[in-house]
Amino acid sequence: MARELHLNLFIHARGHHEAAWRHPAASPLALTDIAYYRDVAQRAEAGLFDSIFLADQLALAEDLDHAARNWLEPITALAALAGATSRIGLIATASTTYTEPYNLARQFASLDHISGGRVGWNIVTSWMATAARNFGGAPPLTHAERYDRGEEFMQVVTGLWDSWAADAVLDDRAGGHYASPRRVRSIDHAGAHYRVAGPLNLPRGPQGRPVFVQAGSSDTGRRFAARHAEAVFTAHMEKSTAQEFYADLKVLAAAEGRAADQILILPGLSPVIGGTEAEAQRIWRELNALTDPEVGRIRLSNRFGGFDFSHLPLDRPLTVEDFPDPSEVQAARSRTEVIIGLVRREQPTLRALLQSLAGARGHFTMAGTPEQIADLIEDWFSTGAADGFNIMPPILPAMLDAFTAEVIPLLQRRGRFRRAYAGKTLREHYGLTLPPSRYEG
Amino acid sequence: MARELHLNLFIHARGHHEAAWRHPAASPLALTDIAYYRDVAQRAEAGLFDSIFLADQLALAEDLDHAARNWLEPITALAALAGATSRIGLIATASTTYTEPYNLARQFASLDHISGGRVGWNIVTSWMATAARNFGGAPPLTHAERYDRGEEFMQVVTGLWDSWAADAVLDDRAGGHYASPRRVRSIDHAGAHYRVAGPLNLPRGPQGRPVFVQAGSSDTGRRFAARHAEAVFTAHMEKSTAQEFYADLKVLAAAEGRAADQILILPGLSPVIGGTEAEAQRIWRELNALTDPEVGRIRLSNRFGGFDFSHLPLDRPLTVEDFPDPSEVQAARSRTEVIIGLVRREQPTLRALLQSLAGARGHFTMAGTPEQIADLIEDWFSTGAADGFNIMPPILPAMLDAFTAEVIPLLQRRGRFRRAYAGKTLREHYGLTLPPSRYEG
Repeated sequence: MARELHLNLFIHARGHHEAAWRHPAASPLALTDIAYYRDVAQRAEAGLFDSIFLADQLALAEDLDHAARNWLEPITALAALAGATSRIGLIATASTTYTEPYNLARQFASLDHISGGRVGWNIVTSWMATAARNFGGAPPLTHAERYDRGEEFMQVVTGLWDSWAADAVLDDRAGGHYASPRRVRSIDHAGAHYRVAGPLNLPRGPQGRPVFVQAGSSDTGRRFAARHAEAVFTAHMEKSTAQEFYADLKVLAAAEGRAADQILILPGLSPVIGGTEAEAQRIWRELNALTDPEVGRIRLSNRFGGFDFSHLPLDRPLTVEDFPDPSEVQAARSRTEVIIGLVRREQPTLRALLQSLAGARGHFTMAGTPEQIADLIEDWFSTGAADGFNIMPPILPAMLDAFTAEVIPLLQRRGRFRRAYAGKTLREHYGLTLPPSRYEG
Repeated sequence: MARELHLNLFIHARGHHEAAWRHPAASPLALTDIAYYRDVAQRAEAGLFDSIFLADQLALAEDLDHAARNWLEPITALAALAGATSRIGLIATASTTYTEPYNLARQFASLDHISGGRVGWNIVTSWMATAARNFGGAPPLTHAERYDRGEEFMQVVTGLWDSWAADAVLDDRAGGHYASPRRVRSIDHAGAHYRVAGPLNLPRGPQGRPVFVQAGSSDTGRRFAARHAEAVFTAHMEKSTAQEFYADLKVLAAAEGRAADQILILPGLSPVIGGTEAEAQRIWRELNALTDPEVGRIRLSNRFGGFDFSHLPLDRPLTVEDFPDPSEVQAARSRTEVIIGLVRREQPTLRALLQSLAGARGHFTMAGTPEQIADLIEDWFSTGAADGFNIMPPILPAMLDAFTAEVIPLLQRRGRFRRAYAGKTLREHYGLTLPPSRYEG
């Protein structure tokens, strides 16, 4: 079978551009209104996307005056969307650092039942110091500590998801046997960070366990992804770094004994789509004209663990000396490295850097025609940079609609994208195998 | 305005009778199928119930061979049901002992937005030793410790729900102001058990905070309910204890400065309904014929913190000496006291006790005609035993259908129950005031 292209829709605010919430083409609905998310999810399903995805942070962003940054909690929102959709995958972010593993395993298993096998889990370790202050107030864990706990967390939750054999529920009404106790087992996990007896109090879901999604970019993050991730969201501002990342992760996964097609690499792509290149550029300028450099400065500071950029002038070219060493700040390594790489290559002014980040926070942004976007997707897909894309429309729903109406038909005509859903579960959409329960047989 | 009767539907397995899952009138759907819950919720909404409720336990019950005891996780299930209903309240159980307060506050706030203001929280402190083993493995907290942590937990989550003023979100697209930072404040809670900075990362929900539901029965539990609960689920096997409980809780609430109509007392009622009393008794016998005394023995043991009842013969009258002292076992005090009270009064055989508990686990069970059920409801409602009922149909959906088709119309004709929903939120259905944010003004 020909290799298939995969598309995830990343739903963020009223679009991924920082100023999208103010743009006239953005949704009129409130960001706390489930009708907004339902509308976007249904549009994505009509476009045959593999999945939708909600990111998360466990603290309020500081720029709430000028930026629309709040959203519904992902697990509850996706549970609500399960009933409003029938095929599209539903990927929720949840933290290994600030959630009890039994609670997380249970809610995702429940979501997998509720959605008929469409759930994915974006595994995050929660680096933000502001999140740590909402969960006990101890200083945030170091990068290494977070991943160390994360590894053990994966053992626990995977054990819980495997604690019921797929055939454990008998529901034998005549004979009076509801479930077979021999097909349900404790896990009795006792490790450095967690003690969890199990079994889970919910039968195995249709997918066995959620599809594992991850976005690590540091060496530790990549090794974690190579071991666990079945889809990887990643940020690149040029094809060459995407190719390097793609090759590296497939090699790391092979070293873990995993097949290359069982770990999909999905770089972020934020397409500003116009009928002509000039129209696309016009929309892009409209969005940038709505940004506020002070919002950008606060966000940049947050990305670098609170580092102070307030003294930097807006219009002087930057150098890497203007930034802290990424290994010395609490931050999402994937993003800080992209930014420092850009500064090293292009020496942008602070104003230009902030506008570039306003597009999609360090992900690849492209203003162009549907043909140009489709060409880029095909090119990255066929030259070892991507197995598909994490589509981040700069304005929702307008740029999602342009993508499904104009770009997806081109990809279909070129034989790159499905014309109908072939499967019912997210595993089936992504071409992933069903994991066997370790307690079976 | 005349005092209004309130009805909650408690959804449990395929009905509250232990053997309901095997009964031919029970739903054919699997207990992990959201379609089952959707069907029952929509029937309850058609019957104009105030709310539906999902209980919870954070460990697998030990009798899974002979009893259908698993269910979807309540928060995800009710989020899914929010979109399948439009008026009925949605009450989810969640634990103060085994959930991070920031996560709990966030998910309930999200559910309140998703449901348009229909969410309630059944506050439990999780007494089961098996649950403790799924959350760190330390010995379970004592009754006093659980409530001590629970009090502080309430301070934290209430603070988080109040951290946004109701008017904090401006969404001023023209002016570029999304929210007013002066109307969103940190809580900076630093107590004996929790340190949580806040604010919540989600705007205030339509109800301000979820409706607080509680089921405590011990002295500590009653004081907790008097301070916090807006609806109280309670188990009584006779009217006199319900009256005592009702009077006591209203007095305790008044001592906390609360109005009597802001704390609704809703005893459990499991109605076995037949066109004639003989038909109702026949259904009751059918259910009891499907029970297994060994399942009952395990459940009784679980209720008394693992106390061993295996040596007791089935057909010898019991005395209180056959039971451990309730103050010396880890247990839900409300249920152990009901059972010991029954043994003291009636000296049933173990077999008879188990059949009695098989009905609805210590709640009031009644087999009768619709008129007899309606008479009982009116009697308890008008003689200081109840503000309404927590309806626990022994078979779902059959006995729910009988209740809505036969009992509710009688209550309506007698002027006791609504003929249409007057409000949109659960607070409005229950006649509860909207709590002001402490940060407003």
